[in-house]
Amino acid sequence: MRISQLSDRTGVSIPTLKYYLREGLLHAGQAQGATRADYDESHVDRVRLVRTLVDVGRLSIERVREVVQVLDAPPASRHELLGAAHEALRPATPTAEPTPDAVARVRSLGPDGCEHSPAGVQLAQALTAAETAGWHVDDSTLATWQRAMRAVAETDVAPELGTATPDDALRYAIVGTVLTDPVLLALRRVAQEGVSAERLAEGGASARARVAERPDGPRTTR
Amino acid sequence: MRISQLSDRTGVSIPTLKYYLREGLLHAGQAQGATRADYDESHVDRVRLVRTLVDVGRLSIERVREVVQVLDAPPASRHELLGAAHEALRPATPTAEPTPDAVARVRSLGPDGCEHSPAGVQLAQALTAAETAGWHVDDSTLATWQRAMRAVAETDVAPELGTATPDDALRYAIVGTVLTDPVLLALRRVAQEGVSAERLAEGGASARARVAERPDGPRTTR
Repeated sequence: MRISQLSDRTGVSIPTLKYYLREGLLHAGQAQGATRADYDESHVDRVRLVRTLVDVGRLSIERVREVVQVLDAPPASRHELLGAAHEALRPATPTAEPTPDAVARVRSLGPDGCEHSPAGVQLAQALTAAETAGWHVDDSTLATWQRAMRAVAETDVAPELGTATPDDALRYAIVGTVLTDPVLLALRRVAQEGVSAERLAEGGASARARVAERPDGPRTTR
Repeated sequence: MRISQLSDRTGVSIPTLKYYLREGLLHAGQAQGATRADYDESHVDRVRLVRTLVDVGRLSIERVREVVQVLDAPPASRHELLGAAHEALRPATPTAEPTPDAVARVRSLGPDGCEHSPAGVQLAQALTAAETAGWHVDDSTLATWQRAMRAVAETDVAPELGTATPDDALRYAIVGTVLTDPVLLALRRVAQEGVSAERLAEGGASARARVAERPDGPRTTR
């Protein structure tokens, strides 16, 4: 198909498609003379993937390029696949070096060596960032969250991925995670409403003092 | 304290502090003559809050202004507090109108009327965005995730918040959520590694075909 048809099929403007081509997010079409190229279903699918990563995943163009490069040359070992997906999905902002304490906490709760994987490094960084901002996640809370996210992960990693092609498995991990992270975070907020409605009518008389004294809680006196 | 001391205390440069003052993210200091102002602990705390929202929460300056405006004039009703926090923490990208199906799914799983709350609307939008990108979250998966996030929310909403001041409760909800969303998402990835290590050695012979045929799975043939 011509680029105009690719634009019709995907709802993405021709200038944007040309930008994707220049930036290496979209593979070139089959040349048909000096000024024409022919595009196929692989281009339609790739453009949709790029839109998903940009619109839903809020990934930068640089990060999308990284994702498509990984997809175009997936790691040979199945073990490295998930790591490559997680690396591509790391938070956009540069984060502080994890503290030794955060690294030790990650080591204690994940599979062997998980503190060195992209996911484990992200966890140590997130714990460090929260701690630096004055928010300590205590061990009991972290254990509760770990169990909760383990239940989620069991729905994420389909057993049939075991013999999927590496690029199918990788695309599944990246796209599924990008699309469903916002669902999980929204579910957290909806659940907060439910718990809040049940609990906030209760509360003890000393509660104000206890919140104010929360040892590591952020404080903003006005 | 002088602005230079506020800069020392917070590690934020004087030009950035002046920018925050101009943008209404930081309340003015006590005027001490025409060119000097005096700042206090409330300014230190506010600057730290702004840095947390920008650095960890990746909120835009416009969104941070919205958060501090809500903090400076918290809603009177306790019921509205969490809604105000969730509204301030909505995803940065404009999302599509939720489909009636997504709204109905939210209605069926949250507290009464939750499909109209900021959190419920975010959930419907996230489900719609995933569906539009070809990723259907089935009812059984959604129920599993809902239970998982309910367990998380029970750690989020401390009973003592019942009698906290509105601005303490609101700050707790906003800052806690911003700082710990990345922890939860990283825990999901670490758990995926664990499940993957356990499962991916297994997998049936027909798995490749089953993944390729996943009814709503995104497809990117190269």
